[in-house]
Amino acid sequence: MPTLRFGVNYTPRRGWFHSWHDFDPEHAREDLAQIAGLGLDHIRVFHLWPLLQPNRTLIRATAVDQLVHLVDIAAEFGLDVMVDGVQGHLSSFDFYPEWTRSWHHRNVFTDPEAIEAQARLLRTLGHALADRPNLIGLQLGNELNNLVEHNPVTVEQVDHYLDTLLAAAEEGLREGQSATHSAYDAAWYGDDHPFTPEASARKGDITTVHPWVFSADCARRYGPRSFEVLHLAEYGTELATAYATDPARPVWVQETGAPEPHIPSSDAPDFARATLLNAAECTALWGVTWWCSHDVDRSLADYPELEYTLGLFDSTGRRKPIADALAETVTELRSRTAGPRPRSTALVLDCTPATRSVSGPGGAYFEEWMRLRREGVRPAVVLAEHAKDGSHLSERGVKELVRTP
Amino acid sequence: MPTLRFGVNYTPRRGWFHSWHDFDPEHAREDLAQIAGLGLDHIRVFHLWPLLQPNRTLIRATAVDQLVHLVDIAAEFGLDVMVDGVQGHLSSFDFYPEWTRSWHHRNVFTDPEAIEAQARLLRTLGHALADRPNLIGLQLGNELNNLVEHNPVTVEQVDHYLDTLLAAAEEGLREGQSATHSAYDAAWYGDDHPFTPEASARKGDITTVHPWVFSADCARRYGPRSFEVLHLAEYGTELATAYATDPARPVWVQETGAPEPHIPSSDAPDFARATLLNAAECTALWGVTWWCSHDVDRSLADYPELEYTLGLFDSTGRRKPIADALAETVTELRSRTAGPRPRSTALVLDCTPATRSVSGPGGAYFEEWMRLRREGVRPAVVLAEHAKDGSHLSERGVKELVRTP
Repeated sequence: MPTLRFGVNYTPRRGWFHSWHDFDPEHAREDLAQIAGLGLDHIRVFHLWPLLQPNRTLIRATAVDQLVHLVDIAAEFGLDVMVDGVQGHLSSFDFYPEWTRSWHHRNVFTDPEAIEAQARLLRTLGHALADRPNLIGLQLGNELNNLVEHNPVTVEQVDHYLDTLLAAAEEGLREGQSATHSAYDAAWYGDDHPFTPEASARKGDITTVHPWVFSADCARRYGPRSFEVLHLAEYGTELATAYATDPARPVWVQETGAPEPHIPSSDAPDFARATLLNAAECTALWGVTWWCSHDVDRSLADYPELEYTLGLFDSTGRRKPIADALAETVTELRSRTAGPRPRSTALVLDCTPATRSVSGPGGAYFEEWMRLRREGVRPAVVLAEHAKDGSHLSERGVKELVRTP
Repeated sequence: MPTLRFGVNYTPRRGWFHSWHDFDPEHAREDLAQIAGLGLDHIRVFHLWPLLQPNRTLIRATAVDQLVHLVDIAAEFGLDVMVDGVQGHLSSFDFYPEWTRSWHHRNVFTDPEAIEAQARLLRTLGHALADRPNLIGLQLGNELNNLVEHNPVTVEQVDHYLDTLLAAAEEGLREGQSATHSAYDAAWYGDDHPFTPEASARKGDITTVHPWVFSADCARRYGPRSFEVLHLAEYGTELATAYATDPARPVWVQETGAPEPHIPSSDAPDFARATLLNAAECTALWGVTWWCSHDVDRSLADYPELEYTLGLFDSTGRRKPIADALAETVTELRSRTAGPRPRSTALVLDCTPATRSVSGPGGAYFEEWMRLRREGVRPAVVLAEHAKDGSHLSERGVKELVRTP
């Protein structure tokens, strides 16, 4: 069985991502030493778009060098690194270069020159990073679809954007390195959202999912210790597997975390443990990357309350109980000698882009899947369009199809 | 007579203002040596708001230190410095910190926390800079009213904003240093524009004017070598003097320049010479600060065409003919032993905030003033509300009032 990967989304303890303005290798070293001390094997890192590309035709070599330097520091601690290119969106803040805003407004998804500029940035990052042996790959950017609200876009335009940028990212990368993209949960559950499940599950090398417990009010709806919350990452992984055309395609739980008050801090260790154990019941799982390494310091203003509490370490660098739970669970999962059995029973998902919310928390499909799971069934998800496709089903090991009542 | 001041708005040759990301004292030294070589006595400098204050409660000490460092480098070359705090607007680009945009949208003029944050920034800059003997003062920011389009605001709100920020800027400054603000020409000529002539002429220590030849299509309307264009800075200075309540208040022609194609490059030297000589005919003139030191490099995209041609030096550092004309005229003006005679004849300006465009290029008042000036009258501007105020008129030396037909 392939080794599961466990890591953390790296949020610098001092100054959050604003620390890129004054990148300090010693600070990074201190943070990454803490992360490696948990027994994790990788981090995901984020630079800021306006700092990387302040003018459409100016990519700052210094900023690119900082990224490479951070990847090298990670290597000192045995950590692999996934680099997200275009941020873009981070913790409620949208970082846009000035050449896309105000008098220079451009739609970042549809303006041809804006797309070309982002492609150039990704090509540059790929070429700069690809010779690093600890590079996992290059992701287009963090939850790009958070930018949809201020950059209206159609499904076709999103597909063109993703295809163009993935090709650019791949250009620099080497065999074994991955080009990926990511979206927040609206891609999976949001009716008519222009980022589709198909784009997530079929473009790039790995499907990434960010099954946050606040999406579709999951934790508020079912409760922080509910079966649904504890199996959300597992469910998200199975849902993503259903949309893949390649049955062997891996699914990466790239972001999940324990945001207060959705998950009270006293419940966070159990939540982390259950999330990992349950996700590990999916044959397609690539790994889990926790959000995030360090709490946002409360001296920084204007974050949504939950962003101040998501760290495995607090803003003074103190390790939190959830970090211990995560580390112990990782050790336990690594010691397993066999992966999960394939899922022989599948619940058929029959929805359209306009009705995909049935598959999200509160939706009929979601609730039926959870009911079956609670009864011990371990259901896979099969799309209605594949329900009569014998080779699809047999490749996935699905022997029985169940439908929602 | 007080010595007239002549300087230049400093636009770093390498990387424009994006060079703050990677501030290089040697590059600055090279640029300022060129500027000092023209015999100029001061520069105006601009940092970028998102780099100074990336979070509402985080002012980067490194960025503040860079500004102080630049002021010290200017001192090496005998240059005094005016520092603009909140940019804000520069050459068509609007630089906003992320905590004012997108999901965090705040109106920068009216949101109380956004105002307080800007005040804190100005206090911090004032305290950091005030002990520098070559500091002219602190200006709130470059042409703040360019932000009105995306931050709707009333006259009363602008006044509150300016008063609050000027008080903050003054807090750190010392005797003899000035706190000022600036606006583009809509403040003077724009009907119902919320930045008023009164705010420009009565708030802060010096009235600043930016009489650009493209405002109200002045150069297109009258021609690049027209009397109107060559006397625009003089006119703007007299217009500003009219709105002052203190007859001794100085007026600073803080930005003027020779933008192609409004002023063809072959006409630029004569334009510069005439602009300085004619502005020097105003008793209130504090000085003239040319826009700008260095052309924007054409490797940087998306600037309006005219921004690439405004430098006294081109983007390779070559001195342009306009620089020689400016330097020679400055030398000539400095050698004068007497200032201009007061203007004994004034043309009465009778307009309201909603009709102030009469005083702009194309307006009846503007054209009558130019007609008189062409006839050799050297008219002052007196507001209708002052026309019967004997002490106002006598303090200004005005003996005869003329009215538009």
